[in-house]
Amino acid sequence: MEFTLGELADLTNTKVKGDKHVVIQRVATLESAKQSEISFVSNPKYKSYLAESKASAVVLSEDVAQEYSGNALIAKDPYLTFAQVVSCFHPVEKPRGAWHPSAVIDETATVEGNVDIGANVVIEANSIIREGSRIGAGSFIGKNTTIGTGSLIHSNVSIYSETIIGKNAIIHSGAVIGADGFGFALQQDKSWYKIKQIGNVVIGDDVEVGANTTVDRAALGSTVLSNGVKLDNQLQIGHNVYIGEHAIMAGGTVVAGSSKIGNRCQIGGGAAISGHIEITDDVVVTGRGMVIGSINQPGVYSSGTTTDTNKNWRRNAARFRQLDTMAKKLKKLEKELDVLKKD
Amino acid sequence: MEFTLGELADLTNTKVKGDKHVVIQRVATLESAKQSEISFVSNPKYKSYLAESKASAVVLSEDVAQEYSGNALIAKDPYLTFAQVVSCFHPVEKPRGAWHPSAVIDETATVEGNVDIGANVVIEANSIIREGSRIGAGSFIGKNTTIGTGSLIHSNVSIYSETIIGKNAIIHSGAVIGADGFGFALQQDKSWYKIKQIGNVVIGDDVEVGANTTVDRAALGSTVLSNGVKLDNQLQIGHNVYIGEHAIMAGGTVVAGSSKIGNRCQIGGGAAISGHIEITDDVVVTGRGMVIGSINQPGVYSSGTTTDTNKNWRRNAARFRQLDTMAKKLKKLEKELDVLKKD
Amino acid sequence: MEFTLGELADLTNTKVKGDKHVVIQRVATLESAKQSEISFVSNPKYKSYLAESKASAVVLSEDVAQEYSGNALIAKDPYLTFAQVVSCFHPVEKPRGAWHPSAVIDETATVEGNVDIGANVVIEANSIIREGSRIGAGSFIGKNTTIGTGSLIHSNVSIYSETIIGKNAIIHSGAVIGADGFGFALQQDKSWYKIKQIGNVVIGDDVEVGANTTVDRAALGSTVLSNGVKLDNQLQIGHNVYIGEHAIMAGGTVVAGSSKIGNRCQIGGGAAISGHIEITDDVVVTGRGMVIGSINQPGVYSSGTTTDTNKNWRRNAARFRQLDTMAKKLKKLEKELDVLKKD
Repeated sequence: MEFTLGELADLTNTKVKGDKHVVIQRVATLESAKQSEISFVSNPKYKSYLAESKASAVVLSEDVAQEYSGNALIAKDPYLTFAQVVSCFHPVEKPRGAWHPSAVIDETATVEGNVDIGANVVIEANSIIREGSRIGAGSFIGKNTTIGTGSLIHSNVSIYSETIIGKNAIIHSGAVIGADGFGFALQQDKSWYKIKQIGNVVIGDDVEVGANTTVDRAALGSTVLSNGVKLDNQLQIGHNVYIGEHAIMAGGTVVAGSSKIGNRCQIGGGAAISGHIEITDDVVVTGRGMVIGSINQPGVYSSGTTTDTNKNWRRNAARFRQLDTMAKKLKKLEKELDVLKKD
Repeated sequence: MEFTLGELADLTNTKVKGDKHVVIQRVATLESAKQSEISFVSNPKYKSYLAESKASAVVLSEDVAQEYSGNALIAKDPYLTFAQVVSCFHPVEKPRGAWHPSAVIDETATVEGNVDIGANVVIEANSIIREGSRIGAGSFIGKNTTIGTGSLIHSNVSIYSETIIGKNAIIHSGAVIGADGFGFALQQDKSWYKIKQIGNVVIGDDVEVGANTTVDRAALGSTVLSNGVKLDNQLQIGHNVYIGEHAIMAGGTVVAGSSKIGNRCQIGGGAAISGHIEITDDVVVTGRGMVIGSINQPGVYSSGTTTDTNKNWRRNAARFRQLDTMAKKLKKLEKELDVLKKD
Repeated sequence: MEFTLGELADLTNTKVKGDKHVVIQRVATLESAKQSEISFVSNPKYKSYLAESKASAVVLSEDVAQEYSGNALIAKDPYLTFAQVVSCFHPVEKPRGAWHPSAVIDETATVEGNVDIGANVVIEANSIIREGSRIGAGSFIGKNTTIGTGSLIHSNVSIYSETIIGKNAIIHSGAVIGADGFGFALQQDKSWYKIKQIGNVVIGDDVEVGANTTVDRAALGSTVLSNGVKLDNQLQIGHNVYIGEHAIMAGGTVVAGSSKIGNRCQIGGGAAISGHIEITDDVVVTGRGMVIGSINQPGVYSSGTTTDTNKNWRRNAARFRQLDTMAKKLKKLEKELDVLKKD
């Protein structure tokens, strides 16, 4: 597949600086790019690499382009434009309507047109796979579940019964959608009585769920991933959690039951969000954030202590346990000093 | 399925207040409940919602019921009773003794009566699946493994060889039981020599293991989940760990090798427990707890620092690295002030 | 299988103290060992158990052996030698060249000699499985992927297309190699545009990847696990991460995109490593480490605060938010006291 720079400009709604006839065959990083390849600079601090790049063209902002004599696509947001260029060279594979003979599809299930079904896929009773979806090898789709139009379920995914997935979802391998929420009632003999989880998971349109991420079904009602939500790998989303539109959450984050995460929130990797709290719209929580109460104002929030040498850390961590005592001593000293100053 | 309120009272050993003939068809939350539905109030702070609820009956404590004029089930523990009511409406599915023809069952394996085996299940040599169990599609059961009576293994579970699982276990999709513990000996050339993990995993009765949770086999001997243990999703239980009866552990917690967690412990989500330590019975560790030494007294333990605005956090986190210095300065000030006061 | 102590000495290049004809049939822990079993003491603090052990032989250092009258293998590194002894009794299973008839192997794939392929394995177009490898039941291998000589892929593993895996790799169940990196560009309407991840994963020789660990494919170029890397369970390795030779990483650690971890680094469990940073060779990060900047010097690094009683923790964690204020007050007091002292 190849494009002229002019064709790429048309496809991405950007302008060419330089030769619009130069042929581009691949995308590459600025350092590795060779002839016939296109790269990008989105962070001005990397513009020093521009001069040495062998790329045939580079996606640049208007500002940076002024310092560059080579061929360029001039973009408002070079990162976004480069992403679009990548898509030109690597269009999404179209399903061909191929069902592998080893797939086990219940006779009451509905599979619409142009759906690819991989080897050893299992689709249970009354489930619906909408037009143009692809179900990867070894994936399991429980009963009464719907997979929306144009969705891509990778291999070895497990989707429990009653799950509703919207259009153009991408679910990566090993993800588990709709397993039981973690609900138990303590009995007098100190054993736990399982609370049957009779809700489901509802996933909107354009949602991506990363590899080995788990999204539990609700106890009652629904656990919800709204339109445009992007979840990285290894997340745990508890029962009855609600995640707002276009929220994005990085790897290894755990969200306990019944919490609500607002629209457009950005949650860093390895964060932990307690149950039954609410994070308002447009909140950013940095990596490893520990959120134990609701956040009512948009903004950037952080927590944790960062690495130090083990020797220093041991001393400081030990003092953390004396912090309240230290604060009280400090207060006492302030008072005593006030008295002395007045003398 | 429907019950009169009187029938539900009999089934849950509770008393009716109001009309025992009212017909209940479903369970629901207090806010969403409609006619013919039953709900509950376990936390008195939600009792304000009672007046507006459309539920045909509500599970209540004696105290709360006094302020409520509608139909009620009077329970000592409304949360537990409601859980039992849910079970009345949603009884556990009974296996029908159906083996999918695509299942690959070694001829030396034993499958007892009334066992359901899903599509593409693999059961290796000498394994035993006891009466009334269900094995979900795509699950793998290695050789010499036993699955106890009435257990439910969901789809795409991997159980390595020599694992012993007790009665009425529930293992959710993507869980991996019995993979190698993480044991390596450092060689002179700085490469790692794998220590063959020749132990196994032993799981007691009434244990639930969440989706994508991993429980490693022991190096020697057994990794043990005792009777009644409940593990949420995404946990990592290292080799030779012992978890006591009715301990409950929330999502994303990691437990390093050879540690012991006592009976009835409750470990919050995203906790990290070091190796070779012992947590006594009845310890609660709150979410994100970092346990690096043994805990010898029952009680509630916590650690971590919670989210603040990024601006404040940056300042405070920087000071954390000066904490020991601050403590020493404080001590020096105290001494100097003492001298001044004596002057 | 049984060996004389003399045979084990020859196989592990160690010396016998005592009876070289004693027959050893199994390995065991010092406490549980019975006649015909061999155990070890690597940490001198356990040598007190030696006297009571029923083991027929023990692997010991020269020092410890002087205090022991029983049969021993004298080793420079008893832990490593014991690991080698375990391997003598539990040699790696050899593949027999058996392909299960249910495996779905694309006609353009290459499977070399003596490869075992389990039930329901799927191998896609143009992939290569080298001599002597074993692919466990239900595993999926995407197109254009290579599995090196002598590798062991356990059951229910998902390996995406274009992945390159070296010799003697071990990949545990539920691991996902090569899923899309987490890359999105923000659009003006606040939705996210997926950046097609067109790189791959390259894994060297002698690498072990734990159960349910995920290693994402690069956006462009490769995510790299170098020779001898050992990853525990439940890790998340982001796109374009580079992990150096013989680095070892414990369970539940997340590494964000484009970071580089040096040779021989040891990263504890539950750590979080930010994106675009570099950790030099021979760095140790203890469990739960939060690394948000590059580490340029070898050494041991730590972070976090450890568990305290909840009562104390609440007080101290509240003070953490005042730490900068406290530091400033302290400075003010020092100045004021200086003034008073001069009076």
